[in-house]
Order: sequence, then C-alpha cells, then structure tokens
Amino acid sequence: MTLYFNLAELLGSRIEQGLYRPGQRLPSVRALSVEHGVSLSTVQQAYRLLEDNGLVSPRPKSGYFVAEDRQLPALPAISRPAQRPVDISQWEQVLELVRATPRPDVIQLGRGMPDVDSPTLKPLLRSLAQISRRMDMPGLYYDNIHGNALLREQIARLMLDSGCRLGPADLVVTTGCHEALSCTIRAVCEPGDIVAVDSPSFHGAMQTLKGLGMKALEIPTDPITGISLEALELALEQWPIKLIQITPSCNNPMGYIMPEARKKALLTLAQRYDVAILEDDVYGDLAYTYPRPRTIKSFDDDGRVLLCSSFSKTLAPGLRVGWVAPGRYLERVLHMKYISTGSTACQPQLAIADFIAQGHYQPHLRRMRSQYQRGRDQMCDWVTRHFPSGTRASRPQGGFMLWVELPESFDTLRLNRALLEQGVQIAVGSIFSASGKYRNCLRMNFAARPTAQIEGAVRSVGETALRLLDTEHAGE
Amino acid sequence: MTLYFNLAELLGSRIEQGLYRPGQRLPSVRALSVEHGVSLSTVQQAYRLLEDNGLVSPRPKSGYFVAEDRQLPALPAISRPAQRPVDISQWEQVLELVRATPRPDVIQLGRGMPDVDSPTLKPLLRSLAQISRRMDMPGLYYDNIHGNALLREQIARLMLDSGCRLGPADLVVTTGCHEALSCTIRAVCEPGDIVAVDSPSFHGAMQTLKGLGMKALEIPTDPITGISLEALELALEQWPIKLIQITPSCNNPMGYIMPEARKKALLTLAQRYDVAILEDDVYGDLAYTYPRPRTIKSFDDDGRVLLCSSFSKTLAPGLRVGWVAPGRYLERVLHMKYISTGSTACQPQLAIADFIAQGHYQPHLRRMRSQYQRGRDQMCDWVTRHFPSGTRASRPQGGFMLWVELPESFDTLRLNRALLEQGVQIAVGSIFSASGKYRNCLRMNFAARPTAQIEGAVRSVGETALRLLDTEHAGE
Ligand SMILES: Cc1ncc(COP(=O)(O)O)c(C=O)c1O
Ligand SMILES: Cc1ncc(COP(=O)(O)O)c(C=O)c1O
Repeated sequence: MTLYFNLAELLGSRIEQGLYRPGQRLPSVRALSVEHGVSLSTVQQAYRLLEDNGLVSPRPKSGYFVAEDRQLPALPAISRPAQRPVDISQWEQVLELVRATPRPDVIQLGRGMPDVDSPTLKPLLRSLAQISRRMDMPGLYYDNIHGNALLREQIARLMLDSGCRLGPADLVVTTGCHEALSCTIRAVCEPGDIVAVDSPSFHGAMQTLKGLGMKALEIPTDPITGISLEALELALEQWPIKLIQITPSCNNPMGYIMPEARKKALLTLAQRYDVAILEDDVYGDLAYTYPRPRTIKSFDDDGRVLLCSSFSKTLAPGLRVGWVAPGRYLERVLHMKYISTGSTACQPQLAIADFIAQGHYQPHLRRMRSQYQRGRDQMCDWVTRHFPSGTRASRPQGGFMLWVELPESFDTLRLNRALLEQGVQIAVGSIFSASGKYRNCLRMNFAARPTAQIEGAVRSVGETALRLLDTEHAGE
Repeated sequence: MTLYFNLAELLGSRIEQGLYRPGQRLPSVRALSVEHGVSLSTVQQAYRLLEDNGLVSPRPKSGYFVAEDRQLPALPAISRPAQRPVDISQWEQVLELVRATPRPDVIQLGRGMPDVDSPTLKPLLRSLAQISRRMDMPGLYYDNIHGNALLREQIARLMLDSGCRLGPADLVVTTGCHEALSCTIRAVCEPGDIVAVDSPSFHGAMQTLKGLGMKALEIPTDPITGISLEALELALEQWPIKLIQITPSCNNPMGYIMPEARKKALLTLAQRYDVAILEDDVYGDLAYTYPRPRTIKSFDDDGRVLLCSSFSKTLAPGLRVGWVAPGRYLERVLHMKYISTGSTACQPQLAIADFIAQGHYQPHLRRMRSQYQRGRDQMCDWVTRHFPSGTRASRPQGGFMLWVELPESFDTLRLNRALLEQGVQIAVGSIFSASGKYRNCLRMNFAARPTAQIEGAVRSVGETALRLLDTEHAGE
C-alpha cells in the first residue's frame, strides 16, 4: 500500500474515533510531514483522498478541517413482527434475486457481493494458480471430512481476534456459510421445531429454516442494539424454542453490532432456557472499528453456541469456503456435513490457508474496512439527498449493506419492477422476514467504490420511489 | 501419450473384445511394425506392457499369445436383506473410513478414489491455473444458483452418450454427487418416508437417508443384473415407498451394469406405482465397453427420474463438481440446493467446462477405462491367488472397485483392525447395508496402476483373512 494511503487511513480513523471533532482544524501539511517523516506532497495526497471521501474539507489559506457532521436519515423504529411461530414464505422473491445472472446493463444493488477488485486480493489468485501447478496435485484429492488441517489452523488463529480460543479440531470447514447454517440447523432441530430469529434477518437462513421444515419466530429487533432480549425472554417462556438464530455482529441487513453486554445477556438467557444459539458471524471481521467485536461464542462455556462463518464477505464468495465451530454438536454437524457435500473443494481451501499464512489477510481487511466505511457514508449521503423525505435508514457499523425504510404503505416489489427498466435492482425487504413483512423496506449494497454511475443508480431508486409515492397519493 | 502405449491399448482392446481368443497366437512383432508404421522396439515395448498386465504371454521362439483365461473367484449369491424398512445405522464405521487422513505408511484400499495421476488430467490443472490469472477473476463471484452455464452446456452434451437429450436448463450443478443425492432425497421425501434401495448400496447415500430421517428398504440384488424387479414389485405392493434409489450402471460396490431391458422394466414399475427414481450414475462413464450404457433417465418420459452424477470418479473428487437432472422436481431441487450451499465453487466448474470443450474428456476416459479394466483383471487374479479358497467376488463391468465375500461367519471389522497394524485398510461390508449386513464382505479399490506394493497389500488382506478364519475354526 502506498504511503499517502496509509496516512489517510490513519487520519481517517482518528476522525472516526472522535479525536478531531467536526469543524475542528486538522494538523498542517508541514506538521504531518515532520511527524510521519513523509514528503509534503504525500500529506497533500492523503488530505485529497480524505477530501474525496467527504471526511475533511479545505478552507482557503487556513488548511484542512474535519467535515461538518453529515445529515443522516432517521433510524427505523424497532421492528414489530408477528409474535408467533410461522411457516416461511418468500421463496419466489429469493429465487428471483439469487437466480439473476450478472448483466452489464443492470446495476445490481441487491446482492450481498463484496468488492473483489482490491489489489490486496492478488496474492490469493496467485496461490490458487500455484496450487494447480504443484506436482502433488493436492487440489484433486478428497479432502478430509473436517476440512483441510492447514486452513483450520489459520481459522483458529483468526478467531482469537473475536475472543475465541479454539483448536483446529473444534472446526469443520463447509462449502460457504450456507452449508454451515444448514448443517447447524439440522444438527440441532427436527422438522416442526421452532427457531427464534432476529428480524429482519438474512433471507438465506430463513429459506434454510423453510426448506428443513422448521418454523420461524421473529423477535422484535432494535436497529442499534439488535434482538430485543425482553421480547426474546417472553418468547422463550411461551414457546418450546430449540434454537436462537442471529447475526449479532455487523448484522445483515441492518449493520448493527450488538453490544458486548447484550451478547453476554443473550447467552445467559439461552443457558437459562437451555436452548442452542446459531451465531452467524459472516460479516464480523468487517466491523469498522478495530479490534473487531467479540462473538457470543467467545463467552460460551458449555458448548451451546454454534458459530457459522465464511470467507465469502471478507475475501470472495465464489471460493465457497466457510466453517462452523459447533461446540457440543460436533458429531452431529459432521454427519450433516458428510451427507450434504461429503467434503469441500480443496484448492480454494489451500489457497486461503496460504493467503492467511503469508500475512495477507489483515492488510486486506484493513483496506476493505475503510473502503466500506467510506462507502457507507457516501451511501447515507446519497439517500439523504435523493430519497423521499421521511425515509429512514440503518447506521451500519460494519459490512457493506444499508437497510432503508420507506413509508408504511410502500411496496418495494413494485419499486423493483419499475427499476428493472432503468437497469437498477435492489433487494426487496419482504425476503428478510419469514412472513413477508418489511414490504416497505429495501437493502442496498455499498461495497463497490463509489462512481457517478452508482450514484445515478441510487438516485434512480430514490426518484422512482418518490414517483410511486406520488401516484399512490394521487390515487387516494 | 507414447506410441507404444497407444499400440498396447489397441491390442488390449482387441483382446478384450474377443478378436483374439485365449491361447491364440498374436501378430508378429514385424507384422505389427509394418501395419502401424512404428519401429520394432515400439512393438516390443507394447507387448511387454501387455505382458505386465497379464493380457499376453510370450512363448520362446514362437512369439506372443493371448493369455489363457484366468481363473475367477465364484460370484456372490443374490443378496437377501431384511424385507422391511429399517432405520439406518453404521455411521461410526463410515466416519472412520471418511475421516482417515491419507498416511504414507497405510495403503488405503477402502476409499472410492480414482487414479488422478494420469497425464490426461494435465490440461485440467492448466485450466485451473489459467482461470486464477484471468483479469475478470470469474472464480471469485457468486455463481448462478443453477451452476455455470458453460459447464451445464458441456454436461448436456456428454449426457447424449447415455441417451439423454437434455438442455442446460434441465441441470443443476452441485458440490459433488453427495449434494446431488441429498438435494434429490429432500426434494422428493419427507422424514419418515420409505426409500427402496439396491443392496449392497453406496454408504454415502445410505447415510444421507439416515441423516434426513428416512427409512431404507433394502431390496435383494443380483451381482450381475442388479436390483431384483420381482422383489421390488412385492415391496412396492406392500409398502408406501416414495423413492427408489439405485446405482444401475457400474454399481458401487458390485460393479454390475443392469441390462437395458431391466432398466426399462424398472421405469415401467415406477410409473405403475407412481414413485420417483434416484439414478446415481457417478461411475456410468467408466463402463469398460464403449459406447457407455444408457441411463434409466434416458427412457424417462414423465420426469420422475432424478439423475445424480459428478466428475469425482471420472476426473477428480477434490474438485467437488457434480450435477442433478431433476426432471419434474427441478424447482424443489433448486430450493434444496440453495439452502444446502447457496452455489458451487466457480473455479473448478470453469476449469472442467474448459477441459471438456477443448476435447480432453473423451481421451482421458478412454485411458482410464482401459486402465481400470486391466486393474480389475489384476485384482481378480490376486484375489484368486491370495485369498482363502471359497472366497467370492463380483465381476465389475466398469469403475474401479471389487466386492469380496468371505465365509458367512467372517467379520471384516476385525479384519480391518488387524490390517491396520500391517499398514493396509479396506472398506468393511457392513457400511453398504442399512442394517449392518455384509459383515463378511469387503470392498477394495483397484484404480491405481498395479505395483508390487499394492499386490503385497492385497496379499496381506488375503493372508490375514485366512489367519482369522483359522483361529475362528480353532476356537470352535
Ligand atoms: C448473514 C449471512 N450469513 C450467511 C451468508 C451466506 O454466506 P456464504 O456465501 O458463505 O454461503 C450470507 C450471504 O449472503 C449472509 O449475509
Ligand atoms: C455411487 C456413488 N455415488 C456418489 C458418490 C459421491 O460422489 P461425490 O464425491 O461426487 O460426492 C460416490 C462416491 O463415493 C459413489 O460411489
């Protein structure tokens, strides 16, 4: 990484951490040049980058200042889903989303795709190529059912950052987090069982419950602190819940990070009612703050937390490498893994193990974290500027998705249909609910580096929403 | 491939096809040299290779002769499993087999591993490497849920050889045949449903039924013609069977190819009782005869056959690329695929599509087919030579596994434990039964080119079996 980029990142994180306040004057170019031992032009480049990202603004003859606080859309209210277990619907809409083949004429804001264009991923591609040239052809053999041992060692090391002390033998490699989720659910539940979920919740997990014949009980969820423990306790009292399934760190779709104290309280609750917890941590490493938040799993002292994750969001989804730390359910999860795919493709596992072992993972994460954080700010600005007034939006603390709430009566399915003609697609809110709630909501991806084309697409979403709202009112 | 190898293959297949009879004199070295326009020493090398493979034998001063018919072990009798649906056991033994990490000091005759050392696989490794170097990095993106379109086109073309006329839209790519099996079973059945299976039957399929909560009804199966249609019909009359699950072409573990007329009759039966058929064709392309046998799917006119397959046995299992042609169950299978892994790793799919499109698949198959056929002959010879008299064995018509039956009272679990000390492992028969039958049977792999070390391993199996039998009798 270049010098100016490093410096910009450093200054950026000081601003984010509040070391410099909005409107406050920043150190002079000369002072920074001396402090960091870099040239004046390097500092100027760094400031220009921060300016491009809207973090600082220059004032003629006075130097650089921290940009004034941006105007943010209001937060959505805490969700209020139906308080009873339901069969899950919405498969058609999910299929429409996941079936969509990339089209050059459509800007897809709906999918959960990270940015895979970063130069920090190059060593991974190199490793993938090298493995194919190795004489012992390790990519061709059946992998061990637990997954490649080198990779599990590296994962165990990475998990230390979230407070987990596990060994390679505590992990099972899976074909993406999807397989981790379905193996976990089948390891813990029988068809007909009730699973409590945060709400809104990742559509893939919801469809897994559907496909395996479980019922979902959606729990009210706060856009800042996550699943309501009070509502969850009531539900635990009232229903024979088998499993609590949540994404507490950098939630999909809302982006919140559940505070550590609430994570602990959730675990205590699960222990009291003797239920298992499926903790989906697929975005956890993409928290904007460093060190990354702790997992519930890191507090787990009786093996009831099954942590599911993957490299799909941190590295690239096409690799299809995930894992589960199944606690006391290890044997059951192994059986489920065996019947689901036998083993996971070898070459991607080996390449990722290489990539981490050679020290490329953390620099890559650092870069993506700050890119995504800037992407979030940019996307929030765009929503403020281009969306109907009264639009609410989440405040993601990690990851690369924004959750947007339009007026109660609005239908984002209609919106998406109208948007297709304009070459833009979003994820409709209803797929994030077991019962088709959140029809007035949508999710947008801000992973890619901002361009005029993407801004144009977001503006289209806002303007089309406004138009539909107007015709709605005209029809009243 | 070298000249002498090509010539040996040609002569070998003429012998196999009966053009030259056992004991008959073969063309002279000089005649072949003229006929094929190769040097005398090339012909001599070819004959030496055939001699090594036991196909020809030299007689001093008279030239080469086709080897006399070998003495073959007797066939196992038709199987007689319990005639009622049972819950499936044996997970521990399967886990022991699939968990075993390759050890240099253990010769693993038990696993279903093809030979991946063939030079005809080189272009596949090249493609894998090239994809990682492509600037558009196709391997990093989420694949379409149906699987890569280029690959599905190639698979549809290959399937013409088995008589199937399908388009890419009729196929779903899976993470190995394992995923094809589990998606299929879950698409057709509910927990508690009864599935009729051939017996003995692939342990992975059996464990999938177990993991998904189905009951298996094992049907008597003939070692030459496959599942007994008479027994199956009785079962269909008596039980509410939902699905018939079989591997009719190059069966695992027995190697038979169900005759075409019986395949048709089976389909008619399924139509009459309105049940679905899961046809596992994972070894079908490895039939020793060319053209390869037709699939039941190729006769299917109402979409009730779900064909499951993969490239694990024909190319390499570490790639984890399989597929299902789910007929009328397409939508259900897609849902099950989505919840099971989301999508399949991209890079291996693209590499295989390349490999086939560039014309490398058929030459590779030709080579493996003849290698495996010679491997079978060699393995049968070894069993005749080194196993206790009275040992029975299957007559594989394709693939690379031999099924061996020892006296009724024999316990191959004990055998395997004794063998571990000698650095040899086999697959115990009981995992091929839902109810732990076939304890006196074992399966051995003959994929690798024969070496003295492998012969030593097979001899150890035979001699250890003999020793155990003797102590058994001594104890009577
Ligand atoms: C919360 C969450 N869990 C799991 C997944 C699935 O991840 P993978 O692509 O590794 O299967 C996603 C991806 O969309 C997700 O958002
Ligand atoms: C009959 C049969 N079906 C399916 C499989 C599994 O194939 P895959 O490795 O592609 O999952 C095997 C492999 O052992 C097999 O023998």
